[in-house]
Amino acid sequence: MIYLDNSATTEPYREVVDAFVKVSRQFFGNPSSLHGIGLEAEKLLNESRRQLAELLGVKDKEIFFTSGGTEGNNTAIKGIAFEYRKRGKHIITTSVEHPSVYETCRQLEGLGFDVTYLPVGSDGAVRVSDVERAIRDDTILVSVMHTNNEVGAVQPIEAIGRLLQNYPKIFFHVDCVQAIGKTPVDFRKANIDLATVSAHKFHGLKGTGALFVREGIRLSPLLAGGNQEKGLRSGTENVAGIVAMAKALRLEMEKMAAERGNLLEMKHYLLDELEKIPQVTVHSRREGASPNIVNFSVRGMKGEVLVHALEERGIYVSTTSACSSKLEKPSRTLLAMGVPKELAQSALRISLSYTNTMEEIRIAAETIKETIESLQKVMRGKR
Amino acid sequence: MIYLDNSATTEPYREVVDAFVKVSRQFFGNPSSLHGIGLEAEKLLNESRRQLAELLGVKDKEIFFTSGGTEGNNTAIKGIAFEYRKRGKHIITTSVEHPSVYETCRQLEGLGFDVTYLPVGSDGAVRVSDVERAIRDDTILVSVMHTNNEVGAVQPIEAIGRLLQNYPKIFFHVDCVQAIGKTPVDFRKANIDLATVSAHKFHGLKGTGALFVREGIRLSPLLAGGNQEKGLRSGTENVAGIVAMAKALRLEMEKMAAERGNLLEMKHYLLDELEKIPQVTVHSRREGASPNIVNFSVRGMKGEVLVHALEERGIYVSTTSACSSKLEKPSRTLLAMGVPKELAQSALRISLSYTNTMEEIRIAAETIKETIESLQKVMRGKR
Repeated sequence: MIYLDNSATTEPYREVVDAFVKVSRQFFGNPSSLHGIGLEAEKLLNESRRQLAELLGVKDKEIFFTSGGTEGNNTAIKGIAFEYRKRGKHIITTSVEHPSVYETCRQLEGLGFDVTYLPVGSDGAVRVSDVERAIRDDTILVSVMHTNNEVGAVQPIEAIGRLLQNYPKIFFHVDCVQAIGKTPVDFRKANIDLATVSAHKFHGLKGTGALFVREGIRLSPLLAGGNQEKGLRSGTENVAGIVAMAKALRLEMEKMAAERGNLLEMKHYLLDELEKIPQVTVHSRREGASPNIVNFSVRGMKGEVLVHALEERGIYVSTTSACSSKLEKPSRTLLAMGVPKELAQSALRISLSYTNTMEEIRIAAETIKETIESLQKVMRGKR
Repeated sequence: MIYLDNSATTEPYREVVDAFVKVSRQFFGNPSSLHGIGLEAEKLLNESRRQLAELLGVKDKEIFFTSGGTEGNNTAIKGIAFEYRKRGKHIITTSVEHPSVYETCRQLEGLGFDVTYLPVGSDGAVRVSDVERAIRDDTILVSVMHTNNEVGAVQPIEAIGRLLQNYPKIFFHVDCVQAIGKTPVDFRKANIDLATVSAHKFHGLKGTGALFVREGIRLSPLLAGGNQEKGLRSGTENVAGIVAMAKALRLEMEKMAAERGNLLEMKHYLLDELEKIPQVTVHSRREGASPNIVNFSVRGMKGEVLVHALEERGIYVSTTSACSSKLEKPSRTLLAMGVPKELAQSALRISLSYTNTMEEIRIAAETIKETIESLQKVMRGKR
């Protein structure tokens, strides 16, 4: 089995599961409890927060634990919208965001907010000048993803951050779910106010994530209640999952430092091989993009057919994001990039991780080539 | 160590952690993925949903997975409020709800909703006649907890459900977090529309929970995004945690069937022994209440002091709910029951589980008696 669907989810690192088990068994207390069993859990929570903050280059108090990327994005966007709605009701985002940003914005439109969805170029990136032009007096939030989950396009986050320094009343939220551990992100340098992180994208566990909220920013809480996470996110903390996330992030950051080159090498090899196949159109950029996502279309073949044909040969890829893969609609990102509908419906996404090897990638590239050829024969035969 | 703080959180059953590990390692796929690795995860998800539904006596399609009780309560209340706000903006709840209900209602007040907080009697229960009197033409939701987390008072859920049958446009939400596995709840018989469940209260894992939503009810999603859980709750499902929750609920329900009598016996023994101590005032009712929560005050002693003194002797209890234990405010529930502030500040909560034994309870009762005596001597000495 060669698993190349790491943008959908990753296999948790062995040490991550081990950490989860240890905490669940030995430190099961509620961190809010007054007694020692609670205190031990609280210590682990604080230690994990410190580790995450250090790895992300921010302050402990700026890290808030969530149940994952979707909650992080909803918390950031709705939290700003409801908290600052008297200041203004205009939000700027892009047409290629993950559904947890896009659908949240759509929902806010139904509640009286006004949202601008910026277009992207054929490279999948927004233009900073488009962001600037979209700014209004009543703009309270700009939400732009760092790395696109479908094609791996990287947005000009630092340039947008610089622009927004001229607009101190506009908050800047960045969905970093696909970036963390793959591309270095400097939250300070990019002037980011809020950033979303999801653990299961970097070999942590599903159901855990974090939201960076710059010190001093208030959010109307999405989950109100027992006042955990300084009232920003109530609910008994998933201590074991949080400890496991801190461990996963440390491992992933170490790998990024040591092995990002390998990831790029695998990506470039894939691109080289794919570009040799006449029916293939590649949608992912070679440079200035994510090192681990390769999106391409095979003209005349449905993506779904190829996914299943490759699976029979032990190669696991996806048509688009996992969230959207059952909707049978062409990728919103590809359409926004100007890819024709038919070609978009033939798209495949390969997403790599540090757990993949060059040997796997060689096999995968060869198998893709063979599979396309063999499917073509079948299709010709049918005519 | 004798752990008697099971309403704060429970130690996960060994089999529950084992199930989590197995799924995390062997079935790490994203249930939304098209390929077999995703499909396997999806099957586990559906199987868990079926198990939960069966154990709760509802349909599969009425179970939605959440990150826990706080998310469940926020999803139910805000989901109804935003979805049906054009029908009306009045909500009825009680003055003794868990913060995740209470603070959610307060937040909605800030967003233009009108909330009635019903009083309770000295038994901690609301009067059905009070619910009826509070109903208005613009009432859209009644939210009443099943079992109070601080004193174990059980609300007249079935009677409220019967009353609300006369008001088909009002939804009925019941926070069942402290009830599940301790007191049988018949969702159908009680005419419940929405019910919240949290796994870590019945030896499942933190970060997992479920929301029952009666078929046909629409909710404005709290977590918008990739359309998981039929769009009601987006976000990659915590498959391993969900499988673990189903396992925990099955074990807990088996224990409820076989051992609820033991729980009651332990509770009654505790009440008998506590009532012999002159300084003690018991706040929990012997009958018609939760079988596992005993709340009492020791006149003249701060609850916190007793918690720590008992902890030194290996007995773990709490002053109030874990969420509120660090706020140093007297219990909202006790005040609503008419307990004087000073007495409320002396409250202790003992909360039992099926993992406790009668032997532990005998030791605990004896230790409590001795601790009170010894603390009194110290206090007398100080005068």
